[in-house]
This record gives sequence, structure tokens and C-alpha cells, in this order.
Amino acid sequence: MTHIQQLMNSLNDICDCGIINDTVNRRYFTGMKSSDGTLVVFKDKAYLIIDFRYIEKAKRTAKGCEVILQNRLYHQINELITMHSASSVSVDTETCTVDQLNNYKTALKASVSSDNRFSRLIRKLRMIKSQDEIDCIIAAQRIAEKGFEHILDFVKEGKTEREVQLELDYFMLSHGAEEISFDTIALSGSNTSLPHGVPSDKPIQKGEFVLLDFGAVVNGYHSDMTRTFCVGKPNEKMHMIYDIVLKAQLAALNTVRSGISGRELDNVAREIICKEGFGNNFGHSLGHGVGMEIHEMPYASPSKEDILHENSIVTVEPGIYLEGEFGVRIEDFVVVKNNGCENITKAEKQLIII
Amino acid sequence: MTHIQQLMNSLNDICDCGIINDTVNRRYFTGMKSSDGTLVVFKDKAYLIIDFRYIEKAKRTAKGCEVILQNRLYHQINELITMHSASSVSVDTETCTVDQLNNYKTALKASVSSDNRFSRLIRKLRMIKSQDEIDCIIAAQRIAEKGFEHILDFVKEGKTEREVQLELDYFMLSHGAEEISFDTIALSGSNTSLPHGVPSDKPIQKGEFVLLDFGAVVNGYHSDMTRTFCVGKPNEKMHMIYDIVLKAQLAALNTVRSGISGRELDNVAREIICKEGFGNNFGHSLGHGVGMEIHEMPYASPSKEDILHENSIVTVEPGIYLEGEFGVRIEDFVVVKNNGCENITKAEKQLIII
Repeated sequence: MTHIQQLMNSLNDICDCGIINDTVNRRYFTGMKSSDGTLVVFKDKAYLIIDFRYIEKAKRTAKGCEVILQNRLYHQINELITMHSASSVSVDTETCTVDQLNNYKTALKASVSSDNRFSRLIRKLRMIKSQDEIDCIIAAQRIAEKGFEHILDFVKEGKTEREVQLELDYFMLSHGAEEISFDTIALSGSNTSLPHGVPSDKPIQKGEFVLLDFGAVVNGYHSDMTRTFCVGKPNEKMHMIYDIVLKAQLAALNTVRSGISGRELDNVAREIICKEGFGNNFGHSLGHGVGMEIHEMPYASPSKEDILHENSIVTVEPGIYLEGEFGVRIEDFVVVKNNGCENITKAEKQLIII
Repeated sequence: MTHIQQLMNSLNDICDCGIINDTVNRRYFTGMKSSDGTLVVFKDKAYLIIDFRYIEKAKRTAKGCEVILQNRLYHQINELITMHSASSVSVDTETCTVDQLNNYKTALKASVSSDNRFSRLIRKLRMIKSQDEIDCIIAAQRIAEKGFEHILDFVKEGKTEREVQLELDYFMLSHGAEEISFDTIALSGSNTSLPHGVPSDKPIQKGEFVLLDFGAVVNGYHSDMTRTFCVGKPNEKMHMIYDIVLKAQLAALNTVRSGISGRELDNVAREIICKEGFGNNFGHSLGHGVGMEIHEMPYASPSKEDILHENSIVTVEPGIYLEGEFGVRIEDFVVVKNNGCENITKAEKQLIII
């Protein structure tokens, strides 16, 4: 069943008409990328109202909906509301702004709700991936891994973090990535202890860790991986910390299966790191879902309630960060299955020394 | 006066407390870039509540506000509300989502308004640029112009649109741009007739127009320019259309001054293009403001009411698009002054043939 059919089938319990104007959700349900446009969904039919810039493309490629050229948007939505005898409208409250909601409330002749049930339905549908979606994510990851191989040849003493970032981005973009997944993190030496550091003009020196966190996008679907490797010989402490992070990651990967909670999964890795005495140096959660957005459900976090469902996707990325010294993070991402998981990430995980 | 002082001085007419959680507005008022954080503004003091990832940086660099480490966000906001005896709260309705508003309404112990007066105040402040802001925008434009010079050497028959895009982006990013302003548009031949076309793997051929629309970002401030040039000899029609667009653009540039409306400015260029018989081939508006966002107030559009104020910035970008043949757009951007404008764009505007 297509995404939009799934949405229409579940609409009845919530409202007569759902309105989506978020770029990502519009693309998810219609298959078409555009910076603007309004998807109006009833239980028996859906409409994409879109302006002249995209009308030709929409007529050719938008799936599961009737395409309408936008002229007077609110008037057009009202006509559809009348045609389908709809009395209640829901918006996607997670993305809809207050101004936008106020405009709908003023202009539409059905009752517009601001509760979040329609939004929650969309998030749940997006969490479970079809094989087509998984294939796009795998394709994105293969590009990222080619980028990683390339960058292992490129990195050497004296290259700056920023140069490494730009080279990796350029490589992925010229090898099939539609976009990069997020601002690539490329850090070295003591900067690797910043979980969200920004690449600087600092040159990489011998004996330093380099930490890369990056991904590619294919057909709107993201990949996400982190590797930490060493330029020249690491010292004993670097070896020790790397081994603890890897052990925590492998244990969590062995635990993933449908039905367990993200919190339980987080705890498997966290306990190992705590036992070694570095609990205070793992300041972020273990992982998050990945799809049309780089962070989506399910979350693997001590503070969240998400359950891992079959064919959801989750990252497994423990880290230890020693301020002023160095940090290590190792990140794979996996498809959750009933009896375990399929690891999408194929890149080497033993400590690489170049 | 700093941005945040301007905001505090005007708050009294709207509410006791304004809450900002949009990335761009938070950076505008505090000077600090972060992906998360809540700015809470009272008429006599402002606070930035921000999590552990950014706390060190915030304490060093955030201006005009007291920095507070985030733990229980709503509880912390309530404490500030009590301390300042505030009874009314406004949110930035243009960026605040419905879910976020609902959370504030549930958790805060002051009355939370969903009217847009606080948002409108922010937009108006952002529209008028200080000399520091103008200097950042000029610096961004100088990087973009270096990129354009570089690309004129790079482009030749056989290079694809995508290769040109990637080369231009890589050049700007490795010559001081913090980011690129927006997805660079690089089109050739009949693709140039798509005002928002996406670069493809089509190779550039002799006798074709190449259209580039691009910009760089410095300290969060964007630049924006478009040039159309020819690879090999253009035909007569290409010359004729180029000359009409240039004439329309020069006329509009000569009209810009504070006090006129964006609609009047649009009309100056539009009338020239209409008189030549191409009114139906200029399907977008003449221009828009540029600053911390690539599109902001004031707009120069037939359908908007904006007035150009001194030290606002506006693009002047007429175009003619002949479907299946070619398109031409020429875009500069200017600082509005009382008796005219200062053109930030210095790149050559006579038709370049390479």
C-alpha cells in the first residue's frame, strides 16, 4: 500500500480532512520534491495544490493525488471541503506554524483543530520503512562509504579539518549524492572531544584522532555514520577508550530487535561505558531514527519512550569525550528486524591507523 | 543600539515577555549560532537558556543576555516570569510551531498569546541593516564574485550543469564562505527557461546561455546574484532578450530609493518588459530582501505592500523565460538610501561571451 493510502485509511479516527504543507511530509506522501505546495487529504481522495513553478513536474510525477494549479489557495481548499462534506480539519502541528494555523482558522469553513493526533499519525507511518525506502538509504550509505575510503587516502598530517570536510562533501556530491545529510563533522586532536564541534582551520597533527560524522542523501533519504581513526600512532589511552566504545557499540548492536525500547537499547551501551568509569563522558543519547530527516522516530535515549518496530531504522552511536584530550564515537545504523537487525553500515570498525 | 536592546525597548506595547526559539532570530539577537536554545526577553533584561553542548560557547560569545544552563526548560522560564512579574507572553508566531505553542500554553503560568505582533516587530527590526550587517553582506558578495570569475575560466563546452554547480560551491566554501546561500542554480540551453530549475547532467553546448544564481554566507549573512552568459556566439534573439532584461534592470536600479513601495519598483522593470511584448514571460516578482535569510522583507512584488526603508537591502532581478528556447535573468542587490541606492554587486553586466 502506498504511503498516502495508509494515511487516508487511518484518517477517519482523527478528522475529515488533513492538511500538510511541510516540505518533507509533502515529498514523503506524493514522491515529489518542491519548496512549496499544499497536500489536502480526505479519506477517499487526496489533492496537491501547487503553483505554476512546479505544476508541470507535479502532473508528471506526483503520485496518489489529483494535482491542482494554485491560484486562490484558501478558496480552493474550501471548494474541496464542500465537495467532500468535511466538517473537521487537522493540520500537522509538528511543522505548521502558529501564523499558518491562524490563517486556516480564519479562512476555512470547517472546524480547524490544533491537537496533534494527525501529526502523530504521520510520524508513525514515516517510522516504518518499506523496502524501497530501505534501498534508498542503503544506496546513500554506499556513497558515504566510498567517500570514507577516499578520505582515508586524502587525510594526512597538515591537512585542516575544513579541507577534509570540503573534500568529503565534494566527493559524495560528485558520486551520486543529491545532497549531504547534514553539516559534515570533521574534527581532530582535542577538538574530537566536542560532540557537535564545527570543522576549523586547525591542521591535523601526527598521533591525533580524526573524527568524521557524515552522510549522503539519495531520493530524499539520508545516511549517517561516524568513524574515528588515527593519523600516526595512538597512545595507550586512545587504544583503551576506542576499545570501550567499540565494545559498547557491538553489545548494543547485538541487542537490537523489534519490541525492545530505545531506552533499553541505550542502557546496554551506557552500562558498559559506566562500568569502565566513563559514564559522565557519554553525554548524548545512543541513537535516533533516520529517513527523510536525519533525526526522526524512533529515538534510543534515556529520556524517551519509543519502542523499536520491525523495519524502523536506528543509529547506534556511543561515544566517550575527554575534555581537552580527545573523543571517540563509532556509529552504524541498522534496520530493526524481529530477531535482530540488519546492519546497513559496512565500513571497517577496528581502529584504523593511517 | 544593539538588536536586543531595540527589541526590549519596543516590547512594552506588545507583551511583558517574548519567547524566541527560531535558529535565525536567536542568532540575530544574541550573535551566537546554535541549533537549539530559548531566548526569553523582558523589557529590562534578556536570558538565553541553552543546553550543555553550547553552554561554554554561549558564555563566551552571546551578547546582551544572561546565559543560563538548560535543565527543566519550562520551570526555568516560569521562574523568570515570576521574577519579572510578567503576566503576558508572546511567541514568534511566524516560526513557532503549533505543538510548541501548545506546550507553552500548558506549561507557563502567564497568558500566552498567539497574535503576530511580536513576530512583526522582529521582522521590522531585521529589515533595517546596521553598517556591521551590511559589511558582512558585502564580504559575502566579494566571495561570490571571486567564485564567478573562477567559474568563467572553468566553464567550457562539455562541462555539465552539475559540475559547474559543484565547482562554484566548492570554490566559495574554500574561499571563506561559511555556507552557500541556497542551492546554487546552474542551468544551460533550454533549461535556462526554468526560473527554479535544478542543475542536471546535461553538458553545456556551443551557442548556449548559462544561467548562474548563487551566493555565499559570512557570519550568517547571505549574498545573492544572478548572471547569464554565453558559451560561444549567441544568436540575434539571445542578444535582443538580454538587452531588454538589462534595460529593465538598469531602470529599476535607477528608481530605488527609500520611501517608494516594492510594488512601484517591480512595476518599473515590468513595464519595460511588457512594452517589448514579453510581460507573460516574466512570471516572478522583481526582488526580495536579503539578510540572515535569503528571502526576507522588503519584497518588491506586484502582490505585496512593503515600503523600501533606508538601509534595507533588496534584490533587483528581472527575467524573461521563453519555454523550450532559453531564459535570461540578471540580478544585483542594493542597499536602499534616501536618494537612491548603493549597488553591492560589482560583477560585469554586459553580455559575457566565453
